[in-house]
Amino acid sequence: MKMVYEGKTKTVYALEDGNFLLKFKDDVTGEDGVFDPGANTVGLTIEGAGKTGLRLTKYFFEILEEKGIPTHFVNANIEEATMTVKPAQMFGNGLEVICRYRAVGSFLRRYGMYAEEGQELDGFVEVTLKDDERQDPPISEDALAMLNILSYEEYKRLKELTKEIGAIIKEVLLKKGIELYDIKLEFGRVGENKDITLIDEISGGNMRAFKDGEYIEPLTLGKIILEN
Amino acid sequence: MKMVYEGKTKTVYALEDGNFLLKFKDDVTGEDGVFDPGANTVGLTIEGAGKTGLRLTKYFFEILEEKGIPTHFVNANIEEATMTVKPAQMFGNGLEVICRYRAVGSFLRRYGMYAEEGQELDGFVEVTLKDDERQDPPISEDALAMLNILSYEEYKRLKELTKEIGAIIKEVLLKKGIELYDIKLEFGRVGENKDITLIDEISGGNMRAFKDGEYIEPLTLGKIILEN
Repeated sequence: MKMVYEGKTKTVYALEDGNFLLKFKDDVTGEDGVFDPGANTVGLTIEGAGKTGLRLTKYFFEILEEKGIPTHFVNANIEEATMTVKPAQMFGNGLEVICRYRAVGSFLRRYGMYAEEGQELDGFVEVTLKDDERQDPPISEDALAMLNILSYEEYKRLKELTKEIGAIIKEVLLKKGIELYDIKLEFGRVGENKDITLIDEISGGNMRAFKDGEYIEPLTLGKIILEN
Repeated sequence: MKMVYEGKTKTVYALEDGNFLLKFKDDVTGEDGVFDPGANTVGLTIEGAGKTGLRLTKYFFEILEEKGIPTHFVNANIEEATMTVKPAQMFGNGLEVICRYRAVGSFLRRYGMYAEEGQELDGFVEVTLKDDERQDPPISEDALAMLNILSYEEYKRLKELTKEIGAIIKEVLLKKGIELYDIKLEFGRVGENKDITLIDEISGGNMRAFKDGEYIEPLTLGKIILEN
């Protein structure tokens, strides 16, 4: 088992059968000890964050698979905090796809002239480049196509899947009285047909969730969603 | 004649017949005395910049009108450095539409992971918000529609006009041995049918033009284009 990539919150190993193993860390993104799903640095380490992230990912990915959403998930070993996934080809050096239901975070920092904090957004989708050095710049459909990162056809599918996934997660959370403000997804090309497929994880670390107007920390989200 | 707006490079007055008068200043955008068409501050004052900007604008707008591009231009008084224009409704608080033929400036700052400096771009169009406080953030077609700034139909027309205008200006410059790297345009809704129409100005102040690999200052551009 060979380590192929050391990420901020996960380590990736190549398996002999061609699949990959993701080892979830207890590190979460943020700044100065405060969690922020949009941050580019590891802000703090929370004991148990890795396992809870994996349990949530397994939980959400199984629901999504049931509803026909393609994901890279093969299986999970909660005790080891590892997940086996299918190989996926990245778009360029990686994209983040954000689905927004409330105007907060970078959306508000950019478009605050036209949106009030917390204003409802109808599952608005935007794409940013994974590029720490350039603060993950937003990128348009035209620029993605011109720079050969994503074709127009792939963009259409990506946007459609993102809206579907966002709506499913939002509904799951709502049943526990939790409101999803936004969620950050990653996709890749999987299989011979290079099907656009959900990759990475879905956990408290890549969404903003609120209950009774209070922000819910990733570990607390895990408890609420899983322990019933 | 009533002053209605004091911009960085122009002052706007309301005329009694419903038209507006733009008074071109000698101030150009930039930072620390260096001209930069993408800057949000007045970087320097160049004697004659206003008149040259107006002469170029008149020159380009007349060529564009001949080719069927709608503009807000009515007439110009070079001696007074003023231009009479039709009233136009802004998109939100104003947009800038950029047409790019070479990867430089903010494009490179954002997408430098995927583009080399000076790389050819095929008339790539992007839109940014006029918002000094938030450094003129780029905005997507979807966000423009969601925030009620521009409809999808208007976006399509805006992009089409931008590509047409960019190509015309590029050709005019090429005849003088000048290469257009990028150009920044502004549009508004004009007349009863709210037709998407080119507004503001087209001069050295809103483009990057190069000759034999050397950047051409706005005043020099005016000389080359007009004095033959």
